[in-house]
Amino acid sequence: MEIKAYEHKVQYYETDQMGVVHHSNYIRWFEEARVDFLDQIGLSYEKMEKEGYISPVISISCEYKTMCHFGENVRIFIKLKSFSGVRFVFSYEVRDAVSGKLRVMGESSHCFIDEAGKVFSLKKVSPEYFEIFNSYVGQETV
Amino acid sequence: MEIKAYEHKVQYYETDQMGVVHHSNYIRWFEEARVDFLDQIGLSYEKMEKEGYISPVISISCEYKTMCHFGENVRIFIKLKSFSGVRFVFSYEVRDAVSGKLRVMGESSHCFIDEAGKVFSLKKVSPEYFEIFNSYVGQETV
Amino acid sequence: MEIKAYEHKVQYYETDQMGVVHHSNYIRWFEEARVDFLDQIGLSYEKMEKEGYISPVISISCEYKTMCHFGENVRIFIKLKSFSGVRFVFSYEVRDAVSGKLRVMGESSHCFIDEAGKVFSLKKVSPEYFEIFNSYVGQETV
Amino acid sequence: MEIKAYEHKVQYYETDQMGVVHHSNYIRWFEEARVDFLDQIGLSYEKMEKEGYISPVISISCEYKTMCHFGENVRIFIKLKSFSGVRFVFSYEVRDAVSGKLRVMGESSHCFIDEAGKVFSLKKVSPEYFEIFNSYVGQETV
Repeated sequence: MEIKAYEHKVQYYETDQMGVVHHSNYIRWFEEARVDFLDQIGLSYEKMEKEGYISPVISISCEYKTMCHFGENVRIFIKLKSFSGVRFVFSYEVRDAVSGKLRVMGESSHCFIDEAGKVFSLKKVSPEYFEIFNSYVGQETV
Repeated sequence: MEIKAYEHKVQYYETDQMGVVHHSNYIRWFEEARVDFLDQIGLSYEKMEKEGYISPVISISCEYKTMCHFGENVRIFIKLKSFSGVRFVFSYEVRDAVSGKLRVMGESSHCFIDEAGKVFSLKKVSPEYFEIFNSYVGQETV
Repeated sequence: MEIKAYEHKVQYYETDQMGVVHHSNYIRWFEEARVDFLDQIGLSYEKMEKEGYISPVISISCEYKTMCHFGENVRIFIKLKSFSGVRFVFSYEVRDAVSGKLRVMGESSHCFIDEAGKVFSLKKVSPEYFEIFNSYVGQETV
Repeated sequence: MEIKAYEHKVQYYETDQMGVVHHSNYIRWFEEARVDFLDQIGLSYEKMEKEGYISPVISISCEYKTMCHFGENVRIFIKLKSFSGVRFVFSYEVRDAVSGKLRVMGESSHCFIDEAGKVFSLKKVSPEYFEIFNSYVGQETV
């Protein structure tokens, strides 16, 4: 199945006094894109949290290339870069929706924990979910 | 017991491209002041949430008088304006810490709900907490 | 011209530990709806800020009726309630996109200031913009 | 001169529905610590921005070790890790204020740009500021 890039409209409250988007907001946009990706493949956060699967962020990295301004739109190209069954990594490219110019690149890594906070292998606990998830590794968004 | 005004240092990420604090952040500062007030009188949020008392915001109002800038400090003068046992109202004055100039005035009203989301009377459920809380109605911070 | 209600998808980072949207975020959604309204009528924030018109928030009020959860969508019905040429008031209704249930009601009032921070009358400075803006007073979004 | 660790009280609005601090907020706390560091060494952001020096974030990385909860306090140990005259790197350790337990580790890299957006060497433009700044490379906060 095709995965569509995520679109975000830059909000006024996301700017700072430098006149550009505050750098912390890109981390939030990564989350928006991730939630949308999971919705698209049918494994939504809501669904997973209701089944007791929580997926915290283990690490984040972000490179700021050029700046986003209020009133612009961005497209976020997200890719499930790797998945070991336990740990998975997403990569992100934030690009201007009109010019395609690269704004920000980043990665986030995650695991699954249960309600007691214990890390578990999705491969073992839900082979069905694992298969769906795993089938998207490396796929580019369009 | 004396209640001290709450101090907040304006953060860079709280500004917007107008070069001043984004108006939504004052609502967050009201919450900071409220949490601090409750800490001071010995009825902390953490304690109350652990006992199953949740206190949602029912309404907010806010008048923006003058603008706060990055690098400034503010003092927030909070007052428990009224408490019926069920519903309570806080008022706030945000003032520049140096000049005392009024920045923002506001009010918030609240009630208590249990974990099932049902409104209850603190007066009935915990007369002891009610007494402490009620004794601060109308008291000015210093 | 018809004005369309603004749609917003509730984000994970907008929730708090009560498991619902933090009350400060509705103030930000009001701004999103306002920006969208101005875009729709052809008087965008970007355009106005570029011409040196800044439009700060003078006051906000907000009544929280029911709570929004992560994964839900809301529609925000915004109305330009009044406009004196100097001061204008927007009203907002945030409703669940599926059930139509009322979540939050609010109002914000605004004025125009120039780059020196002085309030001015749009009616005097730009009768053309005033006419466009004024023609939408009272109009319901669809 | 001694540099003191930065203290932050975890706010309610910083939590998410997982019941812990949302991961994007640590990026904001890094900024708080950075601003405080610069204040301590006498080269404040306000001062530098007034002189036309802007210091954007070039990259961020963050590892989440354990989770922060509402009501806790953290101490942020910040270090100016390196400074080439053009580019500088800060490292951060966020630790629980009571137990000292490590919550989050991170780094941010920065440069200086002028108002036209051009990168410049602080060493060339202001040897005096460069000397002050450079003298803190590698110094641990206490």
